[in-house]
Amino acid sequence: MRALCQTESGIQLRDIEVPEPGPGEALVQIAFAGICSTDLEIARGYMGFRGVLGHEFVGVVVAAPEPALQGTRVVGEINLNCGRCALCARGLGRHCPNRSVLGIAGKDGCFAEYITLPLGNLHRVPDGLCDRAACFTEPIAACFEILEQLTLTKDHRIAVLGDGKLGLLVAMVLATRGIDPVLAGKHERKLALARARGLRTAHPAELEAKSFDFVIEATGSPSGMQRAVELVRPRGSVVLKSTYHGPLTLDAAPIVIDEITIVGSRCGPFPPALEGLEARRLEPQLLIDEEFALADAERALQRAAEPGVLKVLLQMR
Amino acid sequence: MRALCQTESGIQLRDIEVPEPGPGEALVQIAFAGICSTDLEIARGYMGFRGVLGHEFVGVVVAAPEPALQGTRVVGEINLNCGRCALCARGLGRHCPNRSVLGIAGKDGCFAEYITLPLGNLHRVPDGLCDRAACFTEPIAACFEILEQLTLTKDHRIAVLGDGKLGLLVAMVLATRGIDPVLAGKHERKLALARARGLRTAHPAELEAKSFDFVIEATGSPSGMQRAVELVRPRGSVVLKSTYHGPLTLDAAPIVIDEITIVGSRCGPFPPALEGLEARRLEPQLLIDEEFALADAERALQRAAEPGVLKVLLQMR
Repeated sequence: MRALCQTESGIQLRDIEVPEPGPGEALVQIAFAGICSTDLEIARGYMGFRGVLGHEFVGVVVAAPEPALQGTRVVGEINLNCGRCALCARGLGRHCPNRSVLGIAGKDGCFAEYITLPLGNLHRVPDGLCDRAACFTEPIAACFEILEQLTLTKDHRIAVLGDGKLGLLVAMVLATRGIDPVLAGKHERKLALARARGLRTAHPAELEAKSFDFVIEATGSPSGMQRAVELVRPRGSVVLKSTYHGPLTLDAAPIVIDEITIVGSRCGPFPPALEGLEARRLEPQLLIDEEFALADAERALQRAAEPGVLKVLLQMR
Repeated sequence: MRALCQTESGIQLRDIEVPEPGPGEALVQIAFAGICSTDLEIARGYMGFRGVLGHEFVGVVVAAPEPALQGTRVVGEINLNCGRCALCARGLGRHCPNRSVLGIAGKDGCFAEYITLPLGNLHRVPDGLCDRAACFTEPIAACFEILEQLTLTKDHRIAVLGDGKLGLLVAMVLATRGIDPVLAGKHERKLALARARGLRTAHPAELEAKSFDFVIEATGSPSGMQRAVELVRPRGSVVLKSTYHGPLTLDAAPIVIDEITIVGSRCGPFPPALEGLEARRLEPQLLIDEEFALADAERALQRAAEPGVLKVLLQMR
């Protein structure tokens, strides 16, 4: 099969063997895969990953230990945990120290015709939900993680920094719960897209310092983190939603003086993401800027890395 | 009166007027004042403060709107809040944006013969408590702040990084609640002092990575912050107890990947500090390395800045 691989000599589309499902694993034929900023970071060397890239997908089970699963449309959680360690025992399998991570660490990803995943990682896609929307389940689940970690309500003043894919999805997810964040960014096209969904938007410079109960950092830049610390009120919280690659420098004095809390936030629960998508409370297809065939995957990655581009999908069939 | 002042041309012992208490304020004659690392930072230019240094003290009320207060031995909270803003209304007066801070921002401090403070900032010192111990009330209150912000129990794995004054006090305060932290430092004399109080100690390099539920950063150095992030388990918390001056650089990726929470922690409640001191569950006098008369305050500050020195007190009378 063809697969987009991170190799010693960079990104290459290669012909490799179709993976063999291990015990308890399904073989999934990929329909669509989404390109995430993390993929671009990995392509630049983050995590030292070697193998097939990609961790956002929707596909169909073509082989499984339970024959009834065959033909089922699925999305999949990306952390493959051991199920035996102390963190797994506490329900924190997403943080299992022995885990591999689809397309990120020790496990071939979904920029390929097929992947294998443990059955426990798979979630059935509701019938009414189209492939393109379902392909956003993983990043939307990561947005719901914020609501698992913190209690945000409609009475809180909340800013989401960054009008890229992540910031837009975070704001849309919060809105599904009646929360009314202001999305701050510098790209009129993206802000207009948010406003068309009923979201409030602003330029980051317009936001009042020390006035927000919660600031969600989704710019992925160190200056965004510094700005988040400036915007949050004393005793407020900053959610670090972007994955940073490389050192972060910031003035830490306000964190102590204003007793700010900073919360790192990563992968999240799939069920509320699928539920929100099925009910059409979330319509992430608005973020799709372009689609490429797998044969053009290298070009797709370049396109996704261009400034201002939102979601780029790979269509596998 | 004599007072140690931060001036345009540096630290100077000066003769200045005895301050006039405003409405609702008392005039307090200082008995002892403690030199804190924050004072040393301010002397190096932190906060751009100009005026009398010092914020840890014990003294006696010599004039007050309520005559019954005269002759009362007191310690004092350092934040002078406005009492009218939204944060004050929420009980967060220590974060009042209009506040001045004793010896730190906009308010002359206690390295002087007299200070003024609002009556609401003063706490009566119990009779059985000696002046030298009482002089530690403010930094001990700051340690109790951790217990106001987070739920720490004896079942948690907790590391306190830094065997300076702050780390030692933090570990001692946690121990008063049956919590069993390990105090990590590099100074055998200080660690021995902690062990003599029944505390567990370790060299920072001996601590197991990603194994602590809570890590309390009390080294004041950026490398301590980086180490704290390395030591905390996924979904664990780092408490930033040191005040940092200048930029902090760290690898932020683990904060997101391991969903670590970082909690800034500053001033705390005086009542549990006074209670612990009165009951002799806390004996901070162990940390006093030297005492100086106010006339020798400049030398006292130099002594406090020497490597390895713990608490230096100024005796005013």
